[in-house]
Amino acid sequence: MTRRGRRPAEEVRADILEAVGAILLSEGSANLTFERVSREASVSKTTLYKWWPSMGALALDGYFHAVEGTLAFPDTGDIRVDLISQLRAFGELMTRTPGGRVLTELIGRSQTDEDLAIAYRRLYSSQRRRLACERLRRAQEVGQIRSDVDLQIIVDQLWGAVYHRLLIPDEPVTDRFIDGLVTNLLDGVASRKA
Amino acid sequence: MTRRGRRPAEEVRADILEAVGAILLSEGSANLTFERVSREASVSKTTLYKWWPSMGALALDGYFHAVEGTLAFPDTGDIRVDLISQLRAFGELMTRTPGGRVLTELIGRSQTDEDLAIAYRRLYSSQRRRLACERLRRAQEVGQIRSDVDLQIIVDQLWGAVYHRLLIPDEPVTDRFIDGLVTNLLDGVASRKA
Repeated sequence: MTRRGRRPAEEVRADILEAVGAILLSEGSANLTFERVSREASVSKTTLYKWWPSMGALALDGYFHAVEGTLAFPDTGDIRVDLISQLRAFGELMTRTPGGRVLTELIGRSQTDEDLAIAYRRLYSSQRRRLACERLRRAQEVGQIRSDVDLQIIVDQLWGAVYHRLLIPDEPVTDRFIDGLVTNLLDGVASRKA
Repeated sequence: MTRRGRRPAEEVRADILEAVGAILLSEGSANLTFERVSREASVSKTTLYKWWPSMGALALDGYFHAVEGTLAFPDTGDIRVDLISQLRAFGELMTRTPGGRVLTELIGRSQTDEDLAIAYRRLYSSQRRRLACERLRRAQEVGQIRSDVDLQIIVDQLWGAVYHRLLIPDEPVTDRFIDGLVTNLLDGVASRKA
């Protein structure tokens, strides 16, 4: 007995997000349509429209779930090592898969599309900020990051600095760049006076 | 005797850039047209098309010249003080004048318009990078920044971090944020071990 029409909502939702994420990371966003997602996830377009008000919102939700594993924050107990490995994984994703272009195009469109900008922050960037801050907070708790530092600013000086090179590519995103970001920020760039 | 038709090219060029910059910083880019610039700078549209292949290129060139003074890099001899005052001026310009939206919209469009992306880098961002690095290099020469630091990465961790908040506004650009950027990067965020 097939119960396809009665699958639990959470299961249907997971199937949809998986289908969207797979398309985005393998092909980019050009071929992403409600039609195709409906077909690949065996779900009606009405359901899609009900849960996601726009293709941008659906794409962002699918993207977030698709990259969650790749962009997970390791915790080996050494914040320096963990930041470098997470940021290198992020750099790889953004420069070596269609996922990078998906995100920079969404950020680009969100400059003139306020609904998309809100969806971007709600479904993607604020979630990524939260996850980064959780890892940074543990480093602060064990005394690896000074207690007076605003962790949100660290997000801008690490991941934000990578986005800067992705969005305005005067300079490339390389492992050397990523290592430099972490070293500069943890150790400081000012000369140590006696 | 009027010599309007024979003004030296450099003078005409300066008039055009000034007209474009004034429009962008007071009104934004919505009303910027070749027609209007032609009228306000008393120059033929043919001349405009000859010097600037697109409105994006003309806007970027005008913008760069319009903000050059506001965004000048002071040199009091103290890099910490100078970075904070330049970055605060930059934050002001980007959040309190139409100039901020002009730039974020151009960056947004440049994600899908390769000609605009090239113009953006050539006429704006690479020039701003060069000016920032000149000031940072002097700080490095007088021993205020460690000699092994890649100055280009500092640009991403200061100005790039500001752009990150402008383009993806999960968090605001405030003076407190700017001061934090400079303190974090110069002094480092890692706890000092004995």
